[in-house]
Amino acid sequence: MAEGASGCFPEATTVSSAPFSSSPLPSVVPPVVQTPPRTSIADLGDRVGERVLVCGWLHHQRLLKAVDFLLLRDATGIAQVIVEAADLRAVTQALPHESVLAIEATVVAAPQAPNGLELHDPAVTVLGASVGEPPVDLFRPEIPAKLPTLLDHAAVALRHPKRAASQRLLAAAVEGFRASLRAQGFVEISTPKLLETAPEGGANVFPVDYFGSTAYLAQSPQLYKQIMVGALERVFETAPAFRAEPHDTTRHLSQFLSLDAEMGFIHDHQDVMALVTTVLRGMMASVSGETRALEAHGLQDALPEVPPVVPQVHFTEALAMVGAATGEDLSAEPDLAPAHERWLGDWAKQTHGSDWLFVTGYPMRKRPFYTHPDPARPEWSNSFDLLFRGQEIITGGQRLHEYADYLAALTDRGLDAEPFEGYLEAFRHGMPPHGGFALGVERLIALLVGAPNVREVTLFPRDMQRLTP
Amino acid sequence: MAEGASGCFPEATTVSSAPFSSSPLPSVVPPVVQTPPRTSIADLGDRVGERVLVCGWLHHQRLLKAVDFLLLRDATGIAQVIVEAADLRAVTQALPHESVLAIEATVVAAPQAPNGLELHDPAVTVLGASVGEPPVDLFRPEIPAKLPTLLDHAAVALRHPKRAASQRLLAAAVEGFRASLRAQGFVEISTPKLLETAPEGGANVFPVDYFGSTAYLAQSPQLYKQIMVGALERVFETAPAFRAEPHDTTRHLSQFLSLDAEMGFIHDHQDVMALVTTVLRGMMASVSGETRALEAHGLQDALPEVPPVVPQVHFTEALAMVGAATGEDLSAEPDLAPAHERWLGDWAKQTHGSDWLFVTGYPMRKRPFYTHPDPARPEWSNSFDLLFRGQEIITGGQRLHEYADYLAALTDRGLDAEPFEGYLEAFRHGMPPHGGFALGVERLIALLVGAPNVREVTLFPRDMQRLTP
Repeated sequence: MAEGASGCFPEATTVSSAPFSSSPLPSVVPPVVQTPPRTSIADLGDRVGERVLVCGWLHHQRLLKAVDFLLLRDATGIAQVIVEAADLRAVTQALPHESVLAIEATVVAAPQAPNGLELHDPAVTVLGASVGEPPVDLFRPEIPAKLPTLLDHAAVALRHPKRAASQRLLAAAVEGFRASLRAQGFVEISTPKLLETAPEGGANVFPVDYFGSTAYLAQSPQLYKQIMVGALERVFETAPAFRAEPHDTTRHLSQFLSLDAEMGFIHDHQDVMALVTTVLRGMMASVSGETRALEAHGLQDALPEVPPVVPQVHFTEALAMVGAATGEDLSAEPDLAPAHERWLGDWAKQTHGSDWLFVTGYPMRKRPFYTHPDPARPEWSNSFDLLFRGQEIITGGQRLHEYADYLAALTDRGLDAEPFEGYLEAFRHGMPPHGGFALGVERLIALLVGAPNVREVTLFPRDMQRLTP
Repeated sequence: MAEGASGCFPEATTVSSAPFSSSPLPSVVPPVVQTPPRTSIADLGDRVGERVLVCGWLHHQRLLKAVDFLLLRDATGIAQVIVEAADLRAVTQALPHESVLAIEATVVAAPQAPNGLELHDPAVTVLGASVGEPPVDLFRPEIPAKLPTLLDHAAVALRHPKRAASQRLLAAAVEGFRASLRAQGFVEISTPKLLETAPEGGANVFPVDYFGSTAYLAQSPQLYKQIMVGALERVFETAPAFRAEPHDTTRHLSQFLSLDAEMGFIHDHQDVMALVTTVLRGMMASVSGETRALEAHGLQDALPEVPPVVPQVHFTEALAMVGAATGEDLSAEPDLAPAHERWLGDWAKQTHGSDWLFVTGYPMRKRPFYTHPDPARPEWSNSFDLLFRGQEIITGGQRLHEYADYLAALTDRGLDAEPFEGYLEAFRHGMPPHGGFALGVERLIALLVGAPNVREVTLFPRDMQRLTP
């Protein structure tokens, strides 16, 4: 059934005459004269009564006395195949889970079966061998293994429908981010990840041996996205960012996908917050299109709404509220602890019905040197965090835009201006009032699907303990 | 004119009452009662006769006896402002190039002016100061400076309309890549850039100090995109890739934006080449939408067509043709030299009218261990390069998919299987025949706009000599 394999790729115009490199595994399929093109499992409902070709992974088998139920999984779903012929059963029963199969069979309506369909009279070809049983059981509703095992065996564990679904949701969120920004005239950029100077301070950077000298992996595209406001006014980037986080938490990674935007000609950080709101609505709209992936997580009717105006509290009010509720004296706190953020998340839900809350005006001393102060109260900043369900997923704000203000801010923090020279040049030659934000998308998706650890939704997470697979 | 600045951000719903941090520079603008919202310079044609607010950079001034012509540049174009009032001229004449201005003025049809429009009776506010003259002249059709100067001063030089236009074309190409793949069921992924093992061999990798042990920057997402075919069948990634290229050429960078795709259930590399063709057509269609950016490069009617079937030659035929034409004996060559590629590019143009040419079947010994051999002639591979105007911009092919084949290939090359364990696990547990490709998008855009050096279209290029800005 060599020709069958070619049918598994539905759209390509194959112009080659090279023979297909067929699998050495046994096949009991009679020669096929005409192979139908591949049908996705999700589309089988349109083909009842027809002979089809489906291709995918051997998800599971239930072996009964007179018949075997073989579950085949492709990227779109799972189909139940009825195997009755004794010689075929002898072959298929010997196949390990995750063998890759091409199955030609007849689609039969079967109300009792999953999706109301079964595949009858199958002819089976092995396209890719599975050597022994997989390290984790992919056919169960949840893989019965702890997170370290899942991460050690990510190459296989990511095939689990629920874990694959998380990746689809993440991809949809990223594309929603891009699409809503493009619709507002933002231009995508790609900035350097190898830097001579660490933009966010020197503590948590990875040093790189760069042709014998030392470079640092970019913790963010901050300085570059600001520079590009000078050239394109509105820019965004979706790229990995790197932080040498020396602590092992459920929400920090050495590498994360940073969704960054920056725009010129703003009034202040409130314009950036309005943009964040628009973008979040676009991201959720995009995610809502991933019907099957949402169903895999039971989220088809449970996506959080983003209100047209997300509630906001000033940092000082936030501290006062949390302090009043908990009896703590927080008046001198420079930042919100995770427990405080959780309290605020609950408060936003209860009083505003919102999963989202802006906290504005963080103290200047806790924000980076490029932060714009609140002109009316200069010890507070024109910055914000966005909490989603009580966890920070976005940081943003207005930036300084005058050259003199940068020189003063660097001096104020005891930083030398010289390493920032190539960056400061943009400000020396005319920059508009501007601001932007960054979103850690793995964290958003973890909160969305209710994963207790961001690693559950990260393809191949990197942290202090983990550099493989 | 503090309120004017807020009007420069057209769409935001500003809910703040914080005062705008106004510039300390002089302004001779009378108090404005009602500020119109910002108009993009490209949209001025719709507002003839009206009072508008435009914001942007002071591109250039021509000072005549009775009047000054002030050119204002925003992200959408350049407008000519007529400055007549003596007190205003005294202020504006003192402004350096690149000062950021908000100008309220009346739109007047003026057939002799650029775009047929002028702005009269301006009121001018400085939104962002320019301190002295910029390091390069942005107002000339081409910046009169050599490439190293342009790169040293990238923070300002990237504002030049032609250089900014290159970034818009690049962004459009990337989005065209994504859109055409999404339309075919591909899912976007984000893979680790910090690896324990270099996937493409150890020669040109950057070592990273990873919490005291050594990691390597990913040269490509190769192993991960293959693994993810097991979970999602069709995947793509648009992310930086890193190569420690020890030589200084016009087409190599330490960091480039790699557009990667990989798909399962193929027949052979010809399916991947069909996909490449579809994707290239999508990319060019997306680029063709960037009218103003194309005009900046004189390309509005000069985008290369991608034929529905791109011509292809086998590596052996290619060598024979070049050898016959040049008189060289190339029969033992393992690869094509740049001069050979250029010859083939000319040949494709002359004989097939195509800017694009596939060269297939490169020798197995010149390709990485995961390469699938041609089953009929196992010393040649099921791989290809795509040449665009005689330069390689894409490499791709079919990959091995059987576990046993991987073990044999690694042994064959004297490589230890152990460091690849987390990757090989995917192949031990069922992988379909699959393949994919990678495209270096900076190289494509450089060729498209006729830039002799890839650095001309790369935002902040990184190479042996350059780690800043």
